[in-house]
Amino acid sequence: MGGLRVLQIGLGDIGLEIAKLASKKSGLKIVGASDLVKYVGEDLGAILGFGAMGVKIVPDYREALKDTKPDLILHATSSYLQDVYEQIVDCVKEGANIISTCEELSYPFYKHPDLAKNLHHLAKKNRVRILGTGVNPGFLMDTLVTFLTTVCQEVESIVVERVIDASHRRQAFQRKIGVALTEEEFTSKIEGKEISGHVGLEESIAMICDTLGWRLQRIEAEQPKPIIASKQVSSPYYTVPAGKVAGIQQTARGYVNGEARITLIFKAYIGAEEYDHIHIRGTPEVNQMIKPAIQGDKATAAIVVNSIWPLLKTKPGLKTMRDLQPLSYK
Amino acid sequence: MGGLRVLQIGLGDIGLEIAKLASKKSGLKIVGASDLVKYVGEDLGAILGFGAMGVKIVPDYREALKDTKPDLILHATSSYLQDVYEQIVDCVKEGANIISTCEELSYPFYKHPDLAKNLHHLAKKNRVRILGTGVNPGFLMDTLVTFLTTVCQEVESIVVERVIDASHRRQAFQRKIGVALTEEEFTSKIEGKEISGHVGLEESIAMICDTLGWRLQRIEAEQPKPIIASKQVSSPYYTVPAGKVAGIQQTARGYVNGEARITLIFKAYIGAEEYDHIHIRGTPEVNQMIKPAIQGDKATAAIVVNSIWPLLKTKPGLKTMRDLQPLSYK
Repeated sequence: MGGLRVLQIGLGDIGLEIAKLASKKSGLKIVGASDLVKYVGEDLGAILGFGAMGVKIVPDYREALKDTKPDLILHATSSYLQDVYEQIVDCVKEGANIISTCEELSYPFYKHPDLAKNLHHLAKKNRVRILGTGVNPGFLMDTLVTFLTTVCQEVESIVVERVIDASHRRQAFQRKIGVALTEEEFTSKIEGKEISGHVGLEESIAMICDTLGWRLQRIEAEQPKPIIASKQVSSPYYTVPAGKVAGIQQTARGYVNGEARITLIFKAYIGAEEYDHIHIRGTPEVNQMIKPAIQGDKATAAIVVNSIWPLLKTKPGLKTMRDLQPLSYK
Repeated sequence: MGGLRVLQIGLGDIGLEIAKLASKKSGLKIVGASDLVKYVGEDLGAILGFGAMGVKIVPDYREALKDTKPDLILHATSSYLQDVYEQIVDCVKEGANIISTCEELSYPFYKHPDLAKNLHHLAKKNRVRILGTGVNPGFLMDTLVTFLTTVCQEVESIVVERVIDASHRRQAFQRKIGVALTEEEFTSKIEGKEISGHVGLEESIAMICDTLGWRLQRIEAEQPKPIIASKQVSSPYYTVPAGKVAGIQQTARGYVNGEARITLIFKAYIGAEEYDHIHIRGTPEVNQMIKPAIQGDKATAAIVVNSIWPLLKTKPGLKTMRDLQPLSYK
């Protein structure tokens, strides 16, 4: 009954996908699970479709922390660092390592340098590691990009485009990109921060610059724009008539020496023809196309679980994906 | 005048490309250069087109070692570990780290476990690091492949295909793949080991298996086959009439649990439509195409130079590309 003691916090679609994968991996033992509202009182194994695991889902993660004394937290609750900061601090103070899908945690040094510094000190003090990761930010639009530049003698500019068919993604994802809204509703909800769009382009740009040693002057992140359905399209959750919002497009640019040297374009809408495209202008050129686009929910769970052992080999502190090696399926 | 003291051994086309790139990088200082036959007595800077550098090319690398006391050797002399073993040992005994383009050194544990063990002990004893790398083996058909599996919950099988237009490569490369020979000459030279074809598919397969934790049963490497020109084609070095050899194709398969789970296909011929294709069957699927194929000679020099600082951060010993992070353009 050995193995790394794992506590899952957050049982949305991504949290469930992570818990399901983690529970199948040798060397890991899920000892607790927590969600504020979902499945409270039920057995995690039953929820995952495996039959009882003896892991009762509790609403208060602090209770789960004290009761289960985990070595590692797998955490999937929110995209924003300020929303999860206290949760991470609580976990670290209990002596647990933590891997979170919080998008802003993937590279927190740009938007939240003070929180990042605090987390780093706290992790070192408690001899644990903190990592934010996922498919994007965390891999496709940053870590993979810098990895590919290894073949380059010079890098002039980088353009990354991720285009995904949102109908393959979870409902929460479709909601946050505004599927089935009118254009006016979309604009008002984006401005009122009721829907977030995709979070992470700025983190990816800052991480790329830091890795390549480029001095980032500023990031220009455009306001998310709606993509309007030209004909009726549908997903398992929504039917979108022509003229309503099928999804979102977002662009962010990183400026170095007065030039937009990094451009990240993210599009997610119902019915999109999917791909992940990385174009590195340099010597030599790298023109990489992944088609279809990497399935994000499956990939995020994989990346979280595949990061566990490389993370635990690092020295305590706040880490990013660049600190982990070798990264691979385990 | 500070910086890492670098000695370049081997001034073939790849060695020159490496020396040229290294001499442009801050933090590196080329203090010596050696080649058995080429450019002996000349100044390296003049050969590279930079004007005099005060680095005289000597025929005996041992003399250069003693005279220049380098921190790091950049080494490009042969594809075979047995041919370069003594050279590496000499460098390590002088206390120098070494990065070599020797294909068999990229993952020597499969074909040459005893030599690998000796090199590892010797490197540890002398507190230096040894690395074999290059575009392939070293990156496109192994390190990049395992890196991409990070997004996978399961990996069933891997097929990698590299197809390159040999006319963009150096003459030595074109010669070793049999360009312009008759089919009979090709077969006889391959059998007589006068030409090698591409060296490295077995190293790549063994490295992938080791990284993924797959138990490799055996590798089946087909004898290289000629690709015959169907019409006249030409490169800067050769004109190949229809019916003669335009290049080579090679396939190797790695067997795990009785199944060929890794298939690597390498084709290099004059006039090829180029690409690098990685197909990972798994959850999720990864179908990656790089087009045009990565320019190999430029990329090998880049990979060697970009590996320097990550390598020097590792503990002494014999390393592979999997030990280095973060890998990127520097």
